Amino acid sequence: MISVIAKAKVAKVASIKMSALTTELKNRALKAIAENIWREREKILEANQRDLFAAKSLAAKGRYSEPFVRRLKLDKGKLRNIVDMISSVEALEEPVGKTEYAIELDESLELYRVTSPIGVIGVIFESRPDVLPQIAALCLKSGNATIMKGGSEAKNSIQGLYSVISKATKNAGVPEGWIQLLHDRSEVRELLKLDNFVDLIVPRGSNSFVKYIQSNTKIPVLGHSEGVCHIYVDVKADLKKAVEICYDSKVQYPSVCNAVDALLIHREIAERFLPLVSDRYGKAGVEIRGCKESVKILKNRAKQATANDWGTEYLDLIVAIKIVDSLDEAIDFINAHSSHHTDAIVTEDVNTASRFVRETDSSSVICNASTRFSDGYRYGLGAEVGISTGKIHARGPTGLEGLTIYKYYLIGSGQIVRDYVGTDSKKFTHCRLSKNWNDKMKEMSKRD
Amino acid sequence: MISVIAKAKVAKVASIKMSALTTELKNRALKAIAENIWREREKILEANQRDLFAAKSLAAKGRYSEPFVRRLKLDKGKLRNIVDMISSVEALEEPVGKTEYAIELDESLELYRVTSPIGVIGVIFESRPDVLPQIAALCLKSGNATIMKGGSEAKNSIQGLYSVISKATKNAGVPEGWIQLLHDRSEVRELLKLDNFVDLIVPRGSNSFVKYIQSNTKIPVLGHSEGVCHIYVDVKADLKKAVEICYDSKVQYPSVCNAVDALLIHREIAERFLPLVSDRYGKAGVEIRGCKESVKILKNRAKQATANDWGTEYLDLIVAIKIVDSLDEAIDFINAHSSHHTDAIVTEDVNTASRFVRETDSSSVICNASTRFSDGYRYGLGAEVGISTGKIHARGPTGLEGLTIYKYYLIGSGQIVRDYVGTDSKKFTHCRLSKNWNDKMKEMSKRD
Repeated sequence: MISVIAKAKVAKVASIKMSALTTELKNRALKAIAENIWREREKILEANQRDLFAAKSLAAKGRYSEPFVRRLKLDKGKLRNIVDMISSVEALEEPVGKTEYAIELDESLELYRVTSPIGVIGVIFESRPDVLPQIAALCLKSGNATIMKGGSEAKNSIQGLYSVISKATKNAGVPEGWIQLLHDRSEVRELLKLDNFVDLIVPRGSNSFVKYIQSNTKIPVLGHSEGVCHIYVDVKADLKKAVEICYDSKVQYPSVCNAVDALLIHREIAERFLPLVSDRYGKAGVEIRGCKESVKILKNRAKQATANDWGTEYLDLIVAIKIVDSLDEAIDFINAHSSHHTDAIVTEDVNTASRFVRETDSSSVICNASTRFSDGYRYGLGAEVGISTGKIHARGPTGLEGLTIYKYYLIGSGQIVRDYVGTDSKKFTHCRLSKNWNDKMKEMSKRD
Repeated sequence: MISVIAKAKVAKVASIKMSALTTELKNRALKAIAENIWREREKILEANQRDLFAAKSLAAKGRYSEPFVRRLKLDKGKLRNIVDMISSVEALEEPVGKTEYAIELDESLELYRVTSPIGVIGVIFESRPDVLPQIAALCLKSGNATIMKGGSEAKNSIQGLYSVISKATKNAGVPEGWIQLLHDRSEVRELLKLDNFVDLIVPRGSNSFVKYIQSNTKIPVLGHSEGVCHIYVDVKADLKKAVEICYDSKVQYPSVCNAVDALLIHREIAERFLPLVSDRYGKAGVEIRGCKESVKILKNRAKQATANDWGTEYLDLIVAIKIVDSLDEAIDFINAHSSHHTDAIVTEDVNTASRFVRETDSSSVICNASTRFSDGYRYGLGAEVGISTGKIHARGPTGLEGLTIYKYYLIGSGQIVRDYVGTDSKKFTHCRLSKNWNDKMKEMSKRD
């Protein structure tokens, strides 16, 4: 078996060549991946059947839950979605080689800041085998090499998808070794130590899984730990809108990170609002855990919340409710208990809305809409690398941009720093250039 | 004494308020810092004298080096520079509240991605007390709270500068507690554990110091570990330019991170080039450590390099020289031995230049100019937070931008996700908006 470090070295070498691939070649390779996944669909589904068979027998013994087995399952519809997703990545704007900043330092001494791939991306995911083609497509489009490890329960499906992608991209001219697969957990532990070769780790899975990764590596991690989301219903809220938003944010899909966990209700509207929202929730079987005062209003329609309820991600039909005295109290409470993923306000007052969105320290702050909108596809970012609750590099729903960084290119004609130091020295012009890096390249080759 | 966690909590609360400060207030506070530092200059210099006195007696015992003591020293000229630097930060464009992306998801459902401060920045620095006002000014301008710890050898100077800044900003209306000072090393260890309160660590100091910080915290670190810089002199180089560039890159200021450490010389020009460059270096007392073949050419003008020389940051008048066969060999060698800070090529061939800048995996890649240009001031970025050799968030010389991130603001009018799911559902328009967040705020307040 090839060691993890050997794989990482190969990926590093490939990553350098990846950074120079043309848009045409990358798109051709993406097309080939999509075509080959569809052509080999029976083989992939057969491999998936083997994983499912094993998982179901473990589920019968209570080792796996039903939703876990559901996430593992592939079918023609899911493969069609994968193929469509890859085509949508192909259609995205080229993320590499964009000029972000161009400035003349002095005559014939020009600086360009140009977007570039990050290098080698480690991707560790659980259960859902469709993460592999999704992140592979995003890494390829952004010119990054990748080392992937999926859940062992999906090992046949993952090997099948990996083989197809690896072969298709090799034939299309992508440097061999740009995509690498790890097979067991001990290899992940090795990978997390390779900060000289791996530039970014993207973990996709449960909260505890992401936390484990974050605590066990020096490599930067792009991921979200959890989604503890709040809605503050302001004194100036349109209560009809508020009921619908609170309902949708909880009930439309309760087991995901952008579902709401706690409502904060302004005291002055609590008596009117709480019965309305609890009626709506009641029909969907939502359990309400209220603060003392809200329980006084809701009586037997709510349980008493405990200290543990604040700051908890339920991923279930449960919601906590707390009465607050002011916008300030709401903002302070959210900043103290939110996971800084998505928080919302319902209000018709623009000053209140403006203060709330500015002072709430979350990656997505929503006014008068459901928390469930917080997602890369709905935000128009295309396929999603993940949702980041970090505050460095990428925050919130993260598309292709999260897999790129930039480099500075300084093109001179023999300049040295000594000439720019001291009295009577040459002066920097620091004059913004209107041309970009591609223009500069063309200009240089003409001069040749 | 106040505990580190208590200080961090205060800083966190202040950071929320900082994010809503107006440009006017921030600039007024910066002006007040500059004025007060100048007004209190005698007091600050007196405090610095006490540090210097103690440091000199330790230097006499061999505990501190001369350059170390020099970096510690403040005088009127240095204070003037600090005051000028603060004014230049005041003059920079407001980094917070810029709209990076604005898109309509559907009618009256608009998404804005707006730049925001990161939160609480931990700054740990050695020896040079002028780091404190520099980073304080950058944090204030970008709306971040900061917790700082300087070297114990500069404790009186730092306390003096901190008192002036803290008082001046309080009077100008900046939230109290936005700037906090730590006093000893055990407090730094505490700080590095507070990933719930501190969003970014900026270490400024030696290589081993930065590595220590990186290895001892889960908080993201913005810093550079070291600068191992190369120049590749291509077969198509203008040798006259090459000599001047190699000389300036080494001799103009040898003890800094962007000074060159190793030259790679194309075989076909080695016999002509090596005597020229070694003559120039010889006059400045630069020691040359050559590969076998370059020693054959240079004879007693070069020592034999050992394996340890490749990938070493000398910070001194020493340069390693290696003969290579091709551009590919040069790129591979650099990618294997560089610290990915700054590497350069000298060539008149545009295709060679183009491949070199793309495939060299360094934050600054320079063509036909000195490596010493790689610096925030020369790059026109204004005052520098630091130089990052990381590939996430910020890379290379990092200005104010490195202290900001963004937030998503989604402004709706009661929309819920259920309406956008399934067949016959509402469709997202995903249409780019030409207005920005400030326009939207104005529009909303008019409607009121």
